[in-house]
Amino acid sequence: MVSGEDFVSPAAAGIDPTDFDKLGERCARAPRNVFIRTVGLKEGCRKEWTNYYELPVEYTVESYQSLFSLDNDTLATRFMPENCPRRRFLVVDDKVDELYGERIRKYFDHFKVEWRIVVIPGEEENKRFALVDKIFEELCDFGLHRREPIVAVGGGVVLDVVGFTASLYRRGVPYIRVPTTLLAIVDASVGVKTGVDYESKSKGPLKNRMGSFYAPCAAFLDKSFIATQDERNIRNGLCEIMKLALVRSEELFSLLEEHGARIIAERFQGSDFVADRVIELAIELMLEELGPNLWEYKLERCVDYGHSFSKILEMVAEPPIMHGEAVNVDGFFCVVLSHGRGLITSEVRDRVKNTMKSMQLPTFHDGCTEDVMWKGLTDAVEHRHGKQRVPLITGVGSYTFANDISMKEIKEALAEFRDLRVDDKTQT
Amino acid sequence: MVSGEDFVSPAAAGIDPTDFDKLGERCARAPRNVFIRTVGLKEGCRKEWTNYYELPVEYTVESYQSLFSLDNDTLATRFMPENCPRRRFLVVDDKVDELYGERIRKYFDHFKVEWRIVVIPGEEENKRFALVDKIFEELCDFGLHRREPIVAVGGGVVLDVVGFTASLYRRGVPYIRVPTTLLAIVDASVGVKTGVDYESKSKGPLKNRMGSFYAPCAAFLDKSFIATQDERNIRNGLCEIMKLALVRSEELFSLLEEHGARIIAERFQGSDFVADRVIELAIELMLEELGPNLWEYKLERCVDYGHSFSKILEMVAEPPIMHGEAVNVDGFFCVVLSHGRGLITSEVRDRVKNTMKSMQLPTFHDGCTEDVMWKGLTDAVEHRHGKQRVPLITGVGSYTFANDISMKEIKEALAEFRDLRVDDKTQT
Repeated sequence: MVSGEDFVSPAAAGIDPTDFDKLGERCARAPRNVFIRTVGLKEGCRKEWTNYYELPVEYTVESYQSLFSLDNDTLATRFMPENCPRRRFLVVDDKVDELYGERIRKYFDHFKVEWRIVVIPGEEENKRFALVDKIFEELCDFGLHRREPIVAVGGGVVLDVVGFTASLYRRGVPYIRVPTTLLAIVDASVGVKTGVDYESKSKGPLKNRMGSFYAPCAAFLDKSFIATQDERNIRNGLCEIMKLALVRSEELFSLLEEHGARIIAERFQGSDFVADRVIELAIELMLEELGPNLWEYKLERCVDYGHSFSKILEMVAEPPIMHGEAVNVDGFFCVVLSHGRGLITSEVRDRVKNTMKSMQLPTFHDGCTEDVMWKGLTDAVEHRHGKQRVPLITGVGSYTFANDISMKEIKEALAEFRDLRVDDKTQT
Repeated sequence: MVSGEDFVSPAAAGIDPTDFDKLGERCARAPRNVFIRTVGLKEGCRKEWTNYYELPVEYTVESYQSLFSLDNDTLATRFMPENCPRRRFLVVDDKVDELYGERIRKYFDHFKVEWRIVVIPGEEENKRFALVDKIFEELCDFGLHRREPIVAVGGGVVLDVVGFTASLYRRGVPYIRVPTTLLAIVDASVGVKTGVDYESKSKGPLKNRMGSFYAPCAAFLDKSFIATQDERNIRNGLCEIMKLALVRSEELFSLLEEHGARIIAERFQGSDFVADRVIELAIELMLEELGPNLWEYKLERCVDYGHSFSKILEMVAEPPIMHGEAVNVDGFFCVVLSHGRGLITSEVRDRVKNTMKSMQLPTFHDGCTEDVMWKGLTDAVEHRHGKQRVPLITGVGSYTFANDISMKEIKEALAEFRDLRVDDKTQT
């Protein structure tokens, strides 16, 4: 891991087996993995061994109609290991427990599967290591076996925290994701990121600073959960869908432009399949972007759109704002940056704004000070190894990366950002 | 991850690219990674996406004469990334800091590399999450870049804790291992395991219960550090070498049998290369065993020899015993088990005992009660997914696995184990 320039490690490209000999003499019992070199070494080096391994990762994202229906044994049977008791260890968020807890317990009773259900709070402010520790203690007490999956049922916080805990217990046990919010369905369920926020003494609260890349066995989706979400939470999910539309898909954007307000009102339960198509497109676009770059060897990622300035905004905003809301505010600020650079016309800028407005997605926040934006950019440079790599749209569905955003440019963009809000107020 | 039977995941074998089509229709922008299926699905499933990825892992183990000599720029230059300041973030154990701290600081000053050195305690009892948290805080304050490596200099505790922290910071930053004890040179440096012990309220202290599989960029070895270790610590390292000899190598065992006592007395600094050969053989055997099974898909591992009962013994022994010591006590108890099963003759049992004794490696501990041994076995069953999978030798350099060790057998073996100790006392 040497260069910062969209770095691909020597290994990341995958070594052609015919190239193995360049790594050294093959070790008898591990001829594809271990190589010994005793000549042509660096100054002062006596001997060098290379260990090469390709870790295969495979998981599915599966879409169901009703996961806790007694007709559907998916959660009672899938990934149930041999050599261990017929039981499930579940972590469920408190809201889900309130709404679906009884149904979930009846479901496992029906299939004669013993269960332990750990209920944890699902709000962002709880996404800290203390929750990992709580689940960890329960896992020790339960005596979870090495190949026995943990089942996470909840929003993004629960999925991220459980995925993180699963990655740490005995250096990794399997886990299953059951997202219950629109945001978690299209975002936290799809990739392999896990983690918690970290409260640093010197730098303050830091979003997702502690975590891992750790794939689940599967994510089981069920959009009927969205029916019990309130509109603010549904909008929160739509913000991440909007992000994908902006950088990747005119089709998805047009669907939101035309039907966005209605599918929110219908809570994604309409019978015309528009909501299904929106979810499926979002998942597919996300998988296409993440799939070949799961471990982020490539640091230029269009899915980071809206995730440059929002990381800090989300941690400092008072009253707190939701993850998707922060992403949308950042996303619209980046539209203004694009406009300032002449990458898009005023028409595109206004089309985006109007579409966001039609769905009541936030396009401004008072917390967007010069200081917060600059701190976001500084952290992005650390996180993306020495360069800003800020995705900016060049139209609806296309993007480029900026590496030279200056404080002057931020100040100018913030002025336009504020003006657009004033316009807005005048109009309403 | 379904079966417990020496489980290899569907992915673990690596999918032949010609088989990709079985996973579904290829996604346009990720044709080797993302597959969509809409027919032949499980009951109730509308659509299924599969994400398949092979994560390439590559690291080197390199043996040097004197890493902090001003002639050797390895630590000042290797894996120094572009796009970030010329600096090093080091974590060093307190004993190493006392003995080598000044030299290390002068080394980096000489090469005009800025340094931040975090000193942490290196004893086993400190191997807890609190240390991870301490290093984490320093990383936030330092502003470590995403591709900038952390350098760990110390014994196994420091290497394990730093590797674990590196795996968590921003979901993984690179790290370099510089082991300074014999045990760390032949054990903690070679594989990809990281972790800390966990103090469970219900189960008590649990060894390495929290951790990750996370490869370093490299391990740089320098056996001159062993010159400043005391004999007990050197013996501690020899216990892990003995383990490898027992299961894998008559050559290594014979070297220990003939030269063990002397190379301890010489602190591995003799000029006849026996000590070098012992270290190299140990590393090579370890790599051969770990290399093809880095993430432990296969749960039957001969390198787990001596690591079944010792996990509990090591956590409960009063006064505390060292990791290698616990492994050797367990290893000799397993020799007694082998003997009881008729897998080895009394001659082999005594040859092992005499060799251990010649190097003053511990072959007994009062903490080996029925209860501790059974608890060790129970935990092994959880850890090795439902089966004991206890490696037992069938001769010097060969092994098998036992899955049916009963309490009765443990009691009988403990009786012989204690008798052999009595013999020993009578003799001395």
